[in-house]
Amino acid sequence: VAESPAADIVRELTESELIARIQARLPPAPPWLLVGIGDDAAVVEPERNHVDVLSVDTLVEGVHFDRAFVPPDAIGHRAIAVNLSDLAAMGAAPRAALVAMALPFSLRVDDFDAIVSGLAATAARHRLHVAGGNLTRSPGPLVIDVTITGTVKRRQVLLRSGARAGDDVWVSGSIGGAAVGLMVLVSAKGANIASTLSLDDKSSGCIERYLRPEPRVRLGVLLARNRAATACIDLSDGFSDGVHRIADASGVGIIVDADSVPVEDAARGMAAIAGDLGLGAAMGGGDDYELLFTARPRHRRRVAAAARQAGVPVTRVGVCTDTRLVTLRRGPAESPLPRGGYDHFSA
Amino acid sequence: VAESPAADIVRELTESELIARIQARLPPAPPWLLVGIGDDAAVVEPERNHVDVLSVDTLVEGVHFDRAFVPPDAIGHRAIAVNLSDLAAMGAAPRAALVAMALPFSLRVDDFDAIVSGLAATAARHRLHVAGGNLTRSPGPLVIDVTITGTVKRRQVLLRSGARAGDDVWVSGSIGGAAVGLMVLVSAKGANIASTLSLDDKSSGCIERYLRPEPRVRLGVLLARNRAATACIDLSDGFSDGVHRIADASGVGIIVDADSVPVEDAARGMAAIAGDLGLGAAMGGGDDYELLFTARPRHRRRVAAAARQAGVPVTRVGVCTDTRLVTLRRGPAESPLPRGGYDHFSA
Repeated sequence: VAESPAADIVRELTESELIARIQARLPPAPPWLLVGIGDDAAVVEPERNHVDVLSVDTLVEGVHFDRAFVPPDAIGHRAIAVNLSDLAAMGAAPRAALVAMALPFSLRVDDFDAIVSGLAATAARHRLHVAGGNLTRSPGPLVIDVTITGTVKRRQVLLRSGARAGDDVWVSGSIGGAAVGLMVLVSAKGANIASTLSLDDKSSGCIERYLRPEPRVRLGVLLARNRAATACIDLSDGFSDGVHRIADASGVGIIVDADSVPVEDAARGMAAIAGDLGLGAAMGGGDDYELLFTARPRHRRRVAAAARQAGVPVTRVGVCTDTRLVTLRRGPAESPLPRGGYDHFSA
Repeated sequence: VAESPAADIVRELTESELIARIQARLPPAPPWLLVGIGDDAAVVEPERNHVDVLSVDTLVEGVHFDRAFVPPDAIGHRAIAVNLSDLAAMGAAPRAALVAMALPFSLRVDDFDAIVSGLAATAARHRLHVAGGNLTRSPGPLVIDVTITGTVKRRQVLLRSGARAGDDVWVSGSIGGAAVGLMVLVSAKGANIASTLSLDDKSSGCIERYLRPEPRVRLGVLLARNRAATACIDLSDGFSDGVHRIADASGVGIIVDADSVPVEDAARGMAAIAGDLGLGAAMGGGDDYELLFTARPRHRRRVAAAARQAGVPVTRVGVCTDTRLVTLRRGPAESPLPRGGYDHFSA
């Protein structure tokens, strides 16, 4: 089916025409994809001696993104990135994605194309192939639902439950940047406190961080392969929530050293303006898509090697204990670390 | 997490509480499900010498179902059934499902529970296990997105493209019942022509057929295993559309013998009242979830054996030709079969 440049909004196109526009933006299928788009279902050849890892995430307009300040390619990017982050946390290499979209009739075809281009580019960058999906109309918000599959050797799967007392606790990259970026975007939209924030380079970096978080796929895969990590989780629900979940699942306590947490500079700056708001955003904000993981102290070199190879800094932020208490240590003072999770449902 | 009987609407519950309600309605996990609900992703052990089959389908309130006349358990059933039907058409045995729901805040907890019970019951009946999912709120309609995986031996995958000139064309069960059921429900709701329809046993059967279509999972698996079928498709977009798609994908023509198409009696009755509407609904309606397949004439016994074992009648309705024309034969007259597909996007 040829593209119809005359069409302005998706209502003017058929499902087949929209699917053709998606296919035009995808690279050639890899050899393990035996049947792709165009039959009743996709058929994938599993990798020998590997297990399948499956994850699904939904983005709902007005809940997970605001089209007023999130450009369409960033919406497509995010729909893929949130899933890649889940896979990374399991140590799995990405394979196939199924993309289901419910489209408002009034969606511009330009925006549809840009969403698909964002999806396709992020998928291709991480060797993830779109193998199928579903298109339907939505009488309400734009909804994008992506299921992805990954592959990892059975003994190398990273779970949340593998941490043991004495393990180091690590975090990749830095946290808080995306939350600051979101605050800046929301403020600018509301024009409430936008004037108090100068859009310096750091803020721009944070906005980019919010709009196009890069999932730590390579780091997750390398930590699984070299058996450095004992447990791992992605921080899509925030740093504090991640710490609590690993502690709960592993049956350990965790002491986090507040000063060593790699909080984004701009979030610290925010804390100077807005008190604990900046730091709270860093600890609780869920859009950085970093990995939190644990490893034996004797495996610090392996952790460093994986980080170097992935090109991602990692920071040791705490230690697992046998107390089952999750605490934040600031100098000599120790206090319970608030759970502070981002509830995707009630938030 | 214990259930909270005090809650009336889902807004009053957290994501964890809702997930706990889902888990409470699921059977124990099968041994191949290495990691289920509760980690960043599900982990599945692939079946040796089999390939993975993946399908996704979305149900949007107001597009695919009307809560005014589709009870919540039937919504849950349908979300699973549409996917099972896709898998059946590939000859794959069901394995894992990921269920992503976007819930309006005002959804009653009772209704949420009933949707989940409908989902869980249909999944369990077909040995499909819910391995994970995602919950979020919707500022608009209820959206249920189900991804399922199945497993089949690589050489037994049923495609749309395997039909050859001379093959018989078969259809399972009967068609048109669901479309009549939907018409009755819509009419009763609008109270326009409801009075002209007596809700006899046949209409009740059609309503049940619309509300709780039973996907032909066992038949699809058996046709793949005994290598009877050369091509297969599910009729979720209607009989006429299915015939055209197999012809297109296989590069053959198909002659359908109108008199042999197993149209539901009530749809024929409808045709008596509403002219060609009833028959048109049967040919074009997409809610029967029957299978259309082709097989060599020398394999008629195999087809019969699979049908007997699955407990589903099958009817020979036509033949594949080398003309690439898709026609409907009524006695001596032959006319092009209108495509008449149900476009899930623009419909």
